[in-house]
Amino acid sequence: MFDIKNELNRAAELTEEALDRLLPSSDPDYPVIFEAVRYSAMAGGKRIRPFITLKVCEMLGGDVSAALPYAAAIEMIHCYSLIHDDLPCMDNDDLRRGKPTNHKVYGEAMALLAGDALLTHAFGAAASNEKMSPETNLAALKLLSERAGCYGMIGGQVLDMIGEETPHSYELLLKMHEKKTGALIRLSAELGALAAGCRSGEKYEAAVKYAEYIGLAFQIVDDILDAEGDEVTLGKSVGTDRREGKTTFLSFMSIYEAHRRAELVTIEAKNAIEKIENNETLLALADYLLSRKS
Amino acid sequence: MFDIKNELNRAAELTEEALDRLLPSSDPDYPVIFEAVRYSAMAGGKRIRPFITLKVCEMLGGDVSAALPYAAAIEMIHCYSLIHDDLPCMDNDDLRRGKPTNHKVYGEAMALLAGDALLTHAFGAAASNEKMSPETNLAALKLLSERAGCYGMIGGQVLDMIGEETPHSYELLLKMHEKKTGALIRLSAELGALAAGCRSGEKYEAAVKYAEYIGLAFQIVDDILDAEGDEVTLGKSVGTDRREGKTTFLSFMSIYEAHRRAELVTIEAKNAIEKIENNETLLALADYLLSRKS
Repeated sequence: MFDIKNELNRAAELTEEALDRLLPSSDPDYPVIFEAVRYSAMAGGKRIRPFITLKVCEMLGGDVSAALPYAAAIEMIHCYSLIHDDLPCMDNDDLRRGKPTNHKVYGEAMALLAGDALLTHAFGAAASNEKMSPETNLAALKLLSERAGCYGMIGGQVLDMIGEETPHSYELLLKMHEKKTGALIRLSAELGALAAGCRSGEKYEAAVKYAEYIGLAFQIVDDILDAEGDEVTLGKSVGTDRREGKTTFLSFMSIYEAHRRAELVTIEAKNAIEKIENNETLLALADYLLSRKS
Repeated sequence: MFDIKNELNRAAELTEEALDRLLPSSDPDYPVIFEAVRYSAMAGGKRIRPFITLKVCEMLGGDVSAALPYAAAIEMIHCYSLIHDDLPCMDNDDLRRGKPTNHKVYGEAMALLAGDALLTHAFGAAASNEKMSPETNLAALKLLSERAGCYGMIGGQVLDMIGEETPHSYELLLKMHEKKTGALIRLSAELGALAAGCRSGEKYEAAVKYAEYIGLAFQIVDDILDAEGDEVTLGKSVGTDRREGKTTFLSFMSIYEAHRRAELVTIEAKNAIEKIENNETLLALADYLLSRKS
């Protein structure tokens, strides 16, 4: 039986080694910013995005070592977004991955800068990929900027904020998720494909479609977990969506229907890559994300 | 007589055209982030950094159009740093370039995201430079990340914060400025040289040295202006350094001595490029920055 957790752990180790290597190390005159950056970047977490990058690269015949700098860059972007999202002027969260949030430990100003630093160094990390040509690295950096920017993750964050004032239509809810979490999950597949030397064509499209569907399933499951999950298992507060009057999938369907929808979307994800060889790990990932409890 | 103000205005126009072209335009479902980004990025200002990029490129025989995407990228980074610096958790400033600061208009959360967006899109802007090879663009992006990151601008910001708690030594004050404002001014010269196809050698070193010296002179003049400048002319609050007990050049010398020091450093800047042809504009810039009142 295929052990996805074992695979996830091995990929997380590789990612953390790459993060450790690619993050700035320190300066004796101001060690605190380096500590704050690493506090959040090395804090564990499932490392789903880098996993997708590494496994899409492998599925498409590439070498994991060529995907690692891209995987680390995406994880840095993800971590920066969490630090900034947790700030008092945003979600004002005290707990993340079971630990006090960055600003609770280092103060707001330092947390702001730690987020800025992770975003800044993400581009440096991707640019330093010596296994790929300058042209490919440049393409990767353009995608990184596009998916993390106003038309991608940041745009999704803004739509999320707007949704706190005015309830979203179902269409706008989908658009919000497509950007807020979808853009970076899609990017994970895109950069994994790039690292395998695959920049377009059927296999590229299949990998992207797979990522889009698991991104959507991920978000539906997130909404379900926020409604019925366990705070200790999740490592973050639950029930926040309803308390804040947020539009979620559960504003449009029952928990049972949401489960069913997540299942169908997961099947679509698996169908997208069914004809590609060596797809076992990514098929297992789709199932794992559907059944996760945290 | 050479009219530096005219030159500055023309370069600022070119920079603003490039910013307008390279910044994300809008989305009907969430126009506010695009407005917030442009509110700060298109808010005028002297555009000193892009000016240096364009003029170093010209001095070294390059075409201004090849330097423009880099110049715009540096200005985006500069603008992001101003938005984040002005936030309540940092300097808590209400006024910037004579207008309400970004968070005063759009709220803290949106200002945070507008800064994040400018930083993110700066890399996309530099990566989109079609006049230069992918290899050169990649080198530019690496420098952008390095100079804006923990060893550059962000590091300087942290040193500045540390200096508010414990007075800096003169050495640490210099290190702080070298990073906080110096790193981006140095980068302006570096990317101008890159855009002229000049990546090392005597002329490259001369341009970098010039930038380092004018960066230092700029900061000494800044400290003098904060002590004796005019709030209306400056477009920002004055006297803040002393009120906040900040270490500045005036913690170590009189205003007269600081003036003298700025003059000497300006002479060093001019000496650095004296043997390079077509240096008139940059020589005039050094004098202009020394005598500026805002």
